[in-house]
Amino acid sequence: MNPPTIALLTDFGTKDAYVGMMKGVISTMNPDAKVLDITHHIRPQQVAEAAFVLWSAYRYFPEKTIFVNVVDPTVGSKRKIIVVKTPHHTFIAPDNGLLDLILAENEVYHAVSVTNPQFFLKHISPTFHGRDIFAPVAAHLSTGIAPAAMGNNTNLQHRHTSFVSVEKSGIHKGKVIYIDHFGNLITNIRIAKPFLITTQFLDYDFDSLKRTYSDVDKGQPLCLIGSSGLLEIAVRDGNAKDFFGVKDGIGLELEISVN
Amino acid sequence: MNPPTIALLTDFGTKDAYVGMMKGVISTMNPDAKVLDITHHIRPQQVAEAAFVLWSAYRYFPEKTIFVNVVDPTVGSKRKIIVVKTPHHTFIAPDNGLLDLILAENEVYHAVSVTNPQFFLKHISPTFHGRDIFAPVAAHLSTGIAPAAMGNNTNLQHRHTSFVSVEKSGIHKGKVIYIDHFGNLITNIRIAKPFLITTQFLDYDFDSLKRTYSDVDKGQPLCLIGSSGLLEIAVRDGNAKDFFGVKDGIGLELEISVN
Amino acid sequence: MNPPTIALLTDFGTKDAYVGMMKGVISTMNPDAKVLDITHHIRPQQVAEAAFVLWSAYRYFPEKTIFVNVVDPTVGSKRKIIVVKTPHHTFIAPDNGLLDLILAENEVYHAVSVTNPQFFLKHISPTFHGRDIFAPVAAHLSTGIAPAAMGNNTNLQHRHTSFVSVEKSGIHKGKVIYIDHFGNLITNIRIAKPFLITTQFLDYDFDSLKRTYSDVDKGQPLCLIGSSGLLEIAVRDGNAKDFFGVKDGIGLELEISVN
Repeated sequence: MNPPTIALLTDFGTKDAYVGMMKGVISTMNPDAKVLDITHHIRPQQVAEAAFVLWSAYRYFPEKTIFVNVVDPTVGSKRKIIVVKTPHHTFIAPDNGLLDLILAENEVYHAVSVTNPQFFLKHISPTFHGRDIFAPVAAHLSTGIAPAAMGNNTNLQHRHTSFVSVEKSGIHKGKVIYIDHFGNLITNIRIAKPFLITTQFLDYDFDSLKRTYSDVDKGQPLCLIGSSGLLEIAVRDGNAKDFFGVKDGIGLELEISVN
Repeated sequence: MNPPTIALLTDFGTKDAYVGMMKGVISTMNPDAKVLDITHHIRPQQVAEAAFVLWSAYRYFPEKTIFVNVVDPTVGSKRKIIVVKTPHHTFIAPDNGLLDLILAENEVYHAVSVTNPQFFLKHISPTFHGRDIFAPVAAHLSTGIAPAAMGNNTNLQHRHTSFVSVEKSGIHKGKVIYIDHFGNLITNIRIAKPFLITTQFLDYDFDSLKRTYSDVDKGQPLCLIGSSGLLEIAVRDGNAKDFFGVKDGIGLELEISVN
Repeated sequence: MNPPTIALLTDFGTKDAYVGMMKGVISTMNPDAKVLDITHHIRPQQVAEAAFVLWSAYRYFPEKTIFVNVVDPTVGSKRKIIVVKTPHHTFIAPDNGLLDLILAENEVYHAVSVTNPQFFLKHISPTFHGRDIFAPVAAHLSTGIAPAAMGNNTNLQHRHTSFVSVEKSGIHKGKVIYIDHFGNLITNIRIAKPFLITTQFLDYDFDSLKRTYSDVDKGQPLCLIGSSGLLEIAVRDGNAKDFFGVKDGIGLELEISVN
């Protein structure tokens, strides 16, 4: 039988021992669990960024993966920690919107508010539930304990997703929702099938969608459908964030015209 | 039986292949060992920082974990490499103070100076003992070879720890010893039980200890007991290092008054 | 039997979920594979840097390791993806020079151009072959499928390596090819046996090779043979890149005189 997989997503960075401690706790409680990192470099307290990164990645993980998501600005307050079981996976997160994009496209089998201290570490620091609650709960789930044991059923708020699905011609507005390591500007415009599309971003006009970076000359910007199916602005062998002189960039608007 | 666990702590960063090579060596010599990272982002040559990070993390790792610690400014000189066996763990480190905080709170079963080249790689680079000595020694220990085989017993110098234990009322002085990824300023003041405490740091007065970040308004600074049991100065949804305009920050003093 | 090992080298960074997705794909297709990271911090699109880092590391990995190398500026174009089997390892990379240093010192058993979509993910993004082609191909290879199944044999171009092998006296010229996390300047001068060597770099003269950092005083620069056997310029307890005020530094020339 395959080992249970636990995937971690946090804003803890890798400079401190925080992630190492979580892995130590999981390994202590279930040595058979396989732990994979999604990333630990979500910008501190940026829940929406975490929601996007989790959404972009989760479908590539094994069936039954337990996703542990800790971007938790109100750690230690009365905010809930939820365990959500969907047909293919299990998700643990603070109830702060981090799972919104997952909930928008997955049926929920169970949703539980985690309250049973039997599954926590004995001493709970009010500022590090990642180590003291999330990690041990994930380890217990990975041994086969049902979410129902962790607490009572809870209702989930279904919030709207931020994707703009482009399915017919006309003018559509969107915005930048994420900038990756390469400086690619990833937008909330989801394009289901290939269209003839022109894009206006800042004072730049793109007269078509390209397929890949090398469809333009080195150093030139382009518009393409990125690896998550979202419209993306990039620069071949370069960095679109720098090219456009963007500082933060999240929220910058763009307009596309579909013929 | 559980796989043996090896935990790594270095100042090697993750930009180069140095950590990868250590894992390659361990995996070659003992494919069954499970390797976990504590961190590789100790600032170059900062032994005291490594000592703190190791201390903050080690108790969360499985029984019998072998901790490999390589922050080693005098690599290749006559400084010793030591293996220390405590009731629950084994530690390998240069004999440069990196284990001081561990030695202060653990009984030592054996302490050995590593000298037996039978357990090293064949070719030893004078500048990369992490790959050529620490990793293979850890791999051999993880197969069950006793530390005694690695060299002769050695005496350990017990140095004073840097924690200020606060157990009664009065004025106590401490200092910042570590700044984490979130900009939290972690001090050497260890608070055993809850007191009414006021804190003076730079020109700021904190009139009480808070429990967690969300006990103050967004952007406001606070004083709390952090997840390692040490007094910590933080900013809710912000960065205390930036808030206080601190450049390095290690060594900055603070004064607490306990009623 | 030992688990198959897959080692990853990319320029993806660790901020996004890109590396996590690759590990998710591998883990889905072959849960028994052990995945090790070499690094994901090759500077974006720097193929020569990737070639050097891979070369410096590969010999320390287990027999039969499958090395997955994704620094791929022309992803999605007609550039080939190759699988190369050598006596001890298997390498997957774009056919862009990334394997040059490996090919210069290893016999090639098979070299295949990867074209068989049966071993890819079903949907291929033109911009993320790491996830959609490299990772599933590696996973399939790790289950024992032969490279020959992946596509047709291909001819490899043997390009010259950039090392200057110093085997006799005289004047030799070289250059900086890599700068590591510590600011050490690593050159392409490979020194087989110890010589009396003087080095001229920028306006600095080194009158001898040192053995290790602590052979000079703190803060002083030195010349030594680094852990990969290449001449290296370093600063004890410091950073040579900063010491010499080097901005990029790759390509800076030096001259050595061997007596």
